[in-house]
Amino acid sequence: MSFLMDAWYMAAWHHEVVDVPFARRICGLPMVFFRSRDGTVAALEDRCCHRAAPLRFGTVVDQGLQCGYHGLVFDCTGRCVHVPGQERVPPKAMVRAYPLVEKDGILWVWPGDPARADSAKILDYPFHDDTKNWPHKTQHYHVKANYMLLVENLMDLTHLAYVHKSTIGGNPKAHVEAKMTVTPKDQGLHFIRWLPGSMPPPSYQKAAGLHGPIDRWMEFEYTAPGVVVQWTGGLPVGRNAMENRNQSGGFSLRILHCLTPETESTSFYFWSAANGYRQDDPTATTDLFKEIDTAFSEDKGIVEAQQEIMQETGTSDLVNIASDSARMQMRRALQRMLDAQSSAP
Amino acid sequence: MSFLMDAWYMAAWHHEVVDVPFARRICGLPMVFFRSRDGTVAALEDRCCHRAAPLRFGTVVDQGLQCGYHGLVFDCTGRCVHVPGQERVPPKAMVRAYPLVEKDGILWVWPGDPARADSAKILDYPFHDDTKNWPHKTQHYHVKANYMLLVENLMDLTHLAYVHKSTIGGNPKAHVEAKMTVTPKDQGLHFIRWLPGSMPPPSYQKAAGLHGPIDRWMEFEYTAPGVVVQWTGGLPVGRNAMENRNQSGGFSLRILHCLTPETESTSFYFWSAANGYRQDDPTATTDLFKEIDTAFSEDKGIVEAQQEIMQETGTSDLVNIASDSARMQMRRALQRMLDAQSSAP
Amino acid sequence: MSFLMDAWYMAAWHHEVVDVPFARRICGLPMVFFRSRDGTVAALEDRCCHRAAPLRFGTVVDQGLQCGYHGLVFDCTGRCVHVPGQERVPPKAMVRAYPLVEKDGILWVWPGDPARADSAKILDYPFHDDTKNWPHKTQHYHVKANYMLLVENLMDLTHLAYVHKSTIGGNPKAHVEAKMTVTPKDQGLHFIRWLPGSMPPPSYQKAAGLHGPIDRWMEFEYTAPGVVVQWTGGLPVGRNAMENRNQSGGFSLRILHCLTPETESTSFYFWSAANGYRQDDPTATTDLFKEIDTAFSEDKGIVEAQQEIMQETGTSDLVNIASDSARMQMRRALQRMLDAQSSAP
Repeated sequence: MSFLMDAWYMAAWHHEVVDVPFARRICGLPMVFFRSRDGTVAALEDRCCHRAAPLRFGTVVDQGLQCGYHGLVFDCTGRCVHVPGQERVPPKAMVRAYPLVEKDGILWVWPGDPARADSAKILDYPFHDDTKNWPHKTQHYHVKANYMLLVENLMDLTHLAYVHKSTIGGNPKAHVEAKMTVTPKDQGLHFIRWLPGSMPPPSYQKAAGLHGPIDRWMEFEYTAPGVVVQWTGGLPVGRNAMENRNQSGGFSLRILHCLTPETESTSFYFWSAANGYRQDDPTATTDLFKEIDTAFSEDKGIVEAQQEIMQETGTSDLVNIASDSARMQMRRALQRMLDAQSSAP
Repeated sequence: MSFLMDAWYMAAWHHEVVDVPFARRICGLPMVFFRSRDGTVAALEDRCCHRAAPLRFGTVVDQGLQCGYHGLVFDCTGRCVHVPGQERVPPKAMVRAYPLVEKDGILWVWPGDPARADSAKILDYPFHDDTKNWPHKTQHYHVKANYMLLVENLMDLTHLAYVHKSTIGGNPKAHVEAKMTVTPKDQGLHFIRWLPGSMPPPSYQKAAGLHGPIDRWMEFEYTAPGVVVQWTGGLPVGRNAMENRNQSGGFSLRILHCLTPETESTSFYFWSAANGYRQDDPTATTDLFKEIDTAFSEDKGIVEAQQEIMQETGTSDLVNIASDSARMQMRRALQRMLDAQSSAP
Repeated sequence: MSFLMDAWYMAAWHHEVVDVPFARRICGLPMVFFRSRDGTVAALEDRCCHRAAPLRFGTVVDQGLQCGYHGLVFDCTGRCVHVPGQERVPPKAMVRAYPLVEKDGILWVWPGDPARADSAKILDYPFHDDTKNWPHKTQHYHVKANYMLLVENLMDLTHLAYVHKSTIGGNPKAHVEAKMTVTPKDQGLHFIRWLPGSMPPPSYQKAAGLHGPIDRWMEFEYTAPGVVVQWTGGLPVGRNAMENRNQSGGFSLRILHCLTPETESTSFYFWSAANGYRQDDPTATTDLFKEIDTAFSEDKGIVEAQQEIMQETGTSDLVNIASDSARMQMRRALQRMLDAQSSAP
């Protein structure tokens, strides 16, 4: 599999990009990120055009980023604007710059052809700015697995019963019998699963004090290549969750999952968890974060092991089962985009 | 060199295989071992047929082993007997199972064609069960070297004088002048070395209080591919060791060496050491174990260094010497079995 | 790039080679070094001709080096002189020996054709023996970069202003405006840079108590493939440094840099730092050493990062600038020697 380059990927949380440059590889490309003196953010190739020294060793100066080896300076477009000891800047002195947009607390990078980068297509996620109704915490992991294994993980939620039995899982039978509706979307898919009258999993009990049976929903929207928006919640049986889940006062949480390839076999898992209950109580946000953090680390463990064995043995002999339907639609949505990329001029 | 697949290899000590599955790679094949609820042991491919998740993340259930990712259940023959959320099990849903036999405290696995697995050919080692006369302790190392380098190590005992001079070695001259008789066997070879009237090595002195000259013997039997049975001992000069070594009351020890390939360049070294003296004194067993453990770790160090350089430079220019005779017979015995495997139907 | 084999490389400091053998890989060749009982030093292939055991596990004996596995003994020319258990030494039993010369506290090895090894061509560095006028300390690093990146580092001193700003660097403008004269030499080049009336860098201030403006010089002589001799100093403005720098009483230091390839992507950086001021005060030597050690570790960091990215992306698109002139002459000098090697009989 080759990467889908003409796409927006989450590159960093906004608080990671400051006036000290830092490096991250995205879709195989070594990039350096920094915030320039006027506050704008930039992503450049992490390799000086003079002696290939990584620009992450550099310093932010008035004109942009100065290489830490022999002092060449690059502006936010990658153009070299100063070479110490000479008046003239050689015309070939430049590094690649990547379109980078800061929005909703997220830095989105476009590794592909800049001419096709349309920032209007970037995800809207207003919840990050609505800290009154959706207080949240953020996290990211470095994962030793292809990013698609993380996306697949989110497309088949029956894994909750086995991987997360001590955290966010719950009764296996309830998960297996969940009513699931999958709807294809232009650039991905949407699904919702209902677990009516099921016992709340350990995390829900701890976080929200739910102890009796609840009507539980899990709404997921995948946008290719690497974004999954999740809205999950529960209401005690009898409160008509299917109708009332949008009303305030219910119990629910929102998770944003951004899965970004680093290399073919490694990736970044950025996520935020926002609590739509007890919004005035900071411990609610912290407690929810801890539960999710434990659960997602369980996912990390299993996909890393999966990556290792898949790399060795391939996948051609694997057997699909009923719960794979969303996963297979997800693969098709991504394939359509890869095909479009191949046939682009 | 490719592996001899149609053979029994030691896979684990019996106490390693419990109701929590554990993984070990044998002859390049990722395997998972577990003890099912009825007490029988099983070895399966460590890769679920659904999404390739390693089955070592699974749980032992009534019907067998349940995958820890999406809950498929496999019985001890590798057949999938349950897929959560659907009635029908797809006919292709299965994983490979390996013949596995528990005997004398050892688990023996057959990585090759199950149709040719004959458990009658497995080594008899009754000493493990005779704890009255042969109290023992067990150990295993992970060794970063091809298993044959460990076998070779045992076929040329002149190394004791150089590698183990501070433990089980002894006088170099005595080793070099040892009288050695090598006898070919159907599937390997037998040799005995006599060091008449030699001073006991440091380990013997510590363990058995021998200080004056002894008649020392070392009897080794190699069974291809990876089993070496050792019986070693000594009697003070004048007690006619050649005749009396089988009598009780003498000083001797038995070591079982099982050398099992993990990959082409790594292996497992399983061994047990049993003391045929001071059997009522548990410190005799422990002291012997410690001495052997130190000595075999010295072997591990040297064969790992040997592996590294052989991998880089090959072996075609190496020069044989007189002490290589057993090693060369051993290689021929193994080659006969590899040839037989190649010409098997 | 392949190595220049017909050349002298620094292999070790004299105090590293004692009667316990130690191993180091030079130009890709695994070597073992030891001092024999008569005090002479030897470099052999680190691989016994019997079973390829590394000879670094061996022991120095009267006749030479005895293998630590089965006891073969090799003399300093690599000839096997003893095989335990047999009278006759097989004629093919030998290991490769490398010309090795001990001079001025340095061991120089010749990895190429011994017939072309001319010890008259080895660097003279009398300062190591003149501890009255040039007290010094030595160091060496293992560097994860091709040795040429270390040589290049020394050929473009504008990096001092950026890499070493907190140690031996100084004002960027002064470095950029330095007057530099490059002179080609038979087997390398010589350059001198003058920074007239510049402020002393932090290291100079700390080490020599210089605080006002100085006339600072940096004299470097490169001898291919891997030796750089440095003489650096400063005198307060008005003391006519250009004429008087050779007089005693001035402030200067001498650094010997020996860059030796281990593999294509790793190397050894040996260096010594001698203080030509406050020679009676041992803390002057120690303080200078600490400053240099900090600064050179900064170089190590940047060239290791450079190696990593160059290995991935190559260097063909890099852009030269004015300060690269000595670096390019250095490359040409080395290329001449590589060409000579290729066309040697």
